[in-house]
Amino acid sequence: MDTLEVALGARSYPIYIGPGLVSDAELIARAVDAKQVLVVSNTTVAPLYLDGIMQSLHGSDVRVVELPDGEQHKTLGTFGTIVDTLIDAGFHRDACVIALGGGVVGDIAGFAAASYQRGIRYVQIPTTLLAQVDSSVGGKTAVNHPRAKNMIGAFYQPAAVVADTDTLRTLPPREFAAGLAEVIKYGLILDAAFFDWLENNIDAALAQQPAALQHIVRRCCELKAEIVAEDEQERGRRALLNLGHTFGHALESIGRFERWLHGEAVAIGMVLAAQTSRELGRLSAADVDRVRKLLVRAGLPTRADGVDVERVLELMRIDKKASASGLRLILLDRIGEGIVTAAPDPGLLRTVLTAELSG
Amino acid sequence: MDTLEVALGARSYPIYIGPGLVSDAELIARAVDAKQVLVVSNTTVAPLYLDGIMQSLHGSDVRVVELPDGEQHKTLGTFGTIVDTLIDAGFHRDACVIALGGGVVGDIAGFAAASYQRGIRYVQIPTTLLAQVDSSVGGKTAVNHPRAKNMIGAFYQPAAVVADTDTLRTLPPREFAAGLAEVIKYGLILDAAFFDWLENNIDAALAQQPAALQHIVRRCCELKAEIVAEDEQERGRRALLNLGHTFGHALESIGRFERWLHGEAVAIGMVLAAQTSRELGRLSAADVDRVRKLLVRAGLPTRADGVDVERVLELMRIDKKASASGLRLILLDRIGEGIVTAAPDPGLLRTVLTAELSG
Repeated sequence: MDTLEVALGARSYPIYIGPGLVSDAELIARAVDAKQVLVVSNTTVAPLYLDGIMQSLHGSDVRVVELPDGEQHKTLGTFGTIVDTLIDAGFHRDACVIALGGGVVGDIAGFAAASYQRGIRYVQIPTTLLAQVDSSVGGKTAVNHPRAKNMIGAFYQPAAVVADTDTLRTLPPREFAAGLAEVIKYGLILDAAFFDWLENNIDAALAQQPAALQHIVRRCCELKAEIVAEDEQERGRRALLNLGHTFGHALESIGRFERWLHGEAVAIGMVLAAQTSRELGRLSAADVDRVRKLLVRAGLPTRADGVDVERVLELMRIDKKASASGLRLILLDRIGEGIVTAAPDPGLLRTVLTAELSG
Repeated sequence: MDTLEVALGARSYPIYIGPGLVSDAELIARAVDAKQVLVVSNTTVAPLYLDGIMQSLHGSDVRVVELPDGEQHKTLGTFGTIVDTLIDAGFHRDACVIALGGGVVGDIAGFAAASYQRGIRYVQIPTTLLAQVDSSVGGKTAVNHPRAKNMIGAFYQPAAVVADTDTLRTLPPREFAAGLAEVIKYGLILDAAFFDWLENNIDAALAQQPAALQHIVRRCCELKAEIVAEDEQERGRRALLNLGHTFGHALESIGRFERWLHGEAVAIGMVLAAQTSRELGRLSAADVDRVRKLLVRAGLPTRADGVDVERVLELMRIDKKASASGLRLILLDRIGEGIVTAAPDPGLLRTVLTAELSG
């Protein structure tokens, strides 16, 4: 097991990474450390891991909320259901919420923990690659608004993150690949050597070799922990982690959160960001090619045919990464070096989008 | 004008106190400092002060949400309406929310600002005595759950507080008195000299003499700013500010938020806390008498006849100041010195409640 720390003063917390952690009763009990526990999970994940968690928590008063699986349930209504359960149970300020599942479960359970009685502890037990390498670390919690993703939420750090790499073996291949999009993102914005490593080891990753999984989750969490410690509330550098996300959120919305998984939309978005970077003379055509090729090898889409370009531009304008003074975008100066910039003029974006989306 | 500061490092902010501040365009514009502004107010307060605020903000894109007046609207549903308005307006992370009104408007607008895009700036412009001396300072935001008050919220500090003491002149006398309950609270828990001052000057306060109002608001804000700077998230000493509130919340709930105003329920709750303190040998009978007399002179209720004692005890148990290890209460060691304690046994509480409530 690797143990990392997200260094945030009084709000610092550990990330545990390794195989078999979900059934490590001592570790789970220590991370949770509460007499009243609410486990939030979904109908896909709960049958696999809930029993083990419950055994680790015997002696505590444990309640469970099983959400239906899917991004479309990440709503204020579902948030209300979780809060109702906490109130029905009579849970106090020293209770703890466990988020057992992927990014949707983590985001919504985290926001419920952030808001219940103005904040109680929560522990992330991410069971998807995307959640282990990205969404479970750093305290971004949220629910979606019908018209835009993650519009209602809080920066609220967990008390611990327990990333059991064995849980990745039960992931459908499409979801595993979607997680790899975020993995590749870290290489692109922050770590050229890690991008190289991924080019050389993508097959081992796809075969879910334990050493490859451990390396991937650890390296991504190290990079994320560093950036969160430096810029918890995304006033600067943390925005790099949004590479491909402004494009991606627009596509997810157009696809009604059904056509693409989040990671798939981000993969297409990263190609769009790379192409935009190239149009601006920041990135070479050869590097755009490397980006696209690695994503394809990971089993990810890199184009979104038949999408209305004007609709994408409109949705990007209301994205929450924008400010009153205009949209900001994450671009690439080279592989391993992302930058936060003012968005280029709509004409240039339109050209890139037209070439990539309508082809 | 007095200017105080709530010292919270990067989250420090000013409190401006004085007459005529709502129409001080330069001050309002400086405090708000945004191109996109949402004013949240209610149908009682907006007709009085909205025009002035709008004039101070000309040149910005200003939207308004007018809530119906009353605690019963402090719900997750109303919160959703405010968020919808922010999204409809296309407001970004650098937008600002103004809470123009009393405690209900401040709590709900503050929670909307805390949650929209994971947090945007907000400015409190409290127009009731209760909000000026207490709820607008310190970053407690929340909405009610149907079964308990303030169960869903955040600790989220405003960017500034603008307390215009002139606005207190338009308050109905009953609301003004309800605010005095919180004023008296500060004397009881923290400042015997201020309690003495109130005994000597309660008539000037009730006559709303400007010097008396200025002194009251300034002294309460000084005390609150100190305690918030010391214990932002109520892990210790800040809990003193809840004197009378665990009893009071139970009464408010029993009265369906209609029979008593918040301050009135707190007044009765402070008498119950004083009597409980006396039963425990902490407070003298003479001091209980002083508490009761000052509340009566301020025009506040001190008894709640006909209330079911068992229901009060039950509601107190689910109050959010409780922990898994039991209820905590704020009691008085003497006038000017509150303490946070484990609650006495239910038998003693039952005795006090029976004597005071069922008489």
